[in-house]
Amino acid sequence: MGAVTTELTDEAVLAANAAFYQALEGGDLAAMDALWAEGDDAVCIHPGRTPLCGWDDVHRSWAAIFGAGGNPQIILTEERVTRRGGVGWVSATENMLSGANTAVATAINVFEHDGQRWRMIVHHASPILR
Amino acid sequence: MGAVTTELTDEAVLAANAAFYQALEGGDLAAMDALWAEGDDAVCIHPGRTPLCGWDDVHRSWAAIFGAGGNPQIILTEERVTRRGGVGWVSATENMLSGANTAVATAINVFEHDGQRWRMIVHHASPILR
Repeated sequence: MGAVTTELTDEAVLAANAAFYQALEGGDLAAMDALWAEGDDAVCIHPGRTPLCGWDDVHRSWAAIFGAGGNPQIILTEERVTRRGGVGWVSATENMLSGANTAVATAINVFEHDGQRWRMIVHHASPILR
Repeated sequence: MGAVTTELTDEAVLAANAAFYQALEGGDLAAMDALWAEGDDAVCIHPGRTPLCGWDDVHRSWAAIFGAGGNPQIILTEERVTRRGGVGWVSATENMLSGANTAVATAINVFEHDGQRWRMIVHHASPILR
């Protein structure tokens, strides 16, 4: 969550996106809490699951995931950012490595600038079925 | 694509979203073409698939899907709209009925207002795995 995430630039959106995956890899609930938009508009869709709507449910899901441990290493590829003023989104492929297991998901992450910094408002990750 | 989709309102975003599912149900490629943002920023993720980036690839995917026929009936539930000025997105559950078969997916659809009307710029549908 460096200072770069305060700017109205594509790079700042990508930095906010990187902060999300850093929190995810590290199982860092405080960092995850800090980077989301708190409110009813927050939506989180974990791979293969139904949407969690509103910050309370989103937060609880991360607490449960991090509580279960075994956070994967995630290598992002094919990152693409689009920004329209204070709203930006990133499309990316999540290459997840957990021990000897690998999985691939595709994500759309939407961020909004709250006047001070970028906050995640939508995380939609979905499994790639082969 | 009624006049309502020209307004900077949540209702107009929902109307644009409804127009998308109407085009999808009807297998109407001309309507689908008309409602998307044409350009490199268009992203379409069909359930279980990797992202298609850029309007050319997105268009080709709809042409192939519609060419194969058998367009499902889709009943949308749990629609939620969020809008920040000229960008809006809809979270919804897609209940698909095709003959005796049913399937459920969850979607995030992002729209941008081009100055005249709302256009889809992201469609991300993902399977719900039980």
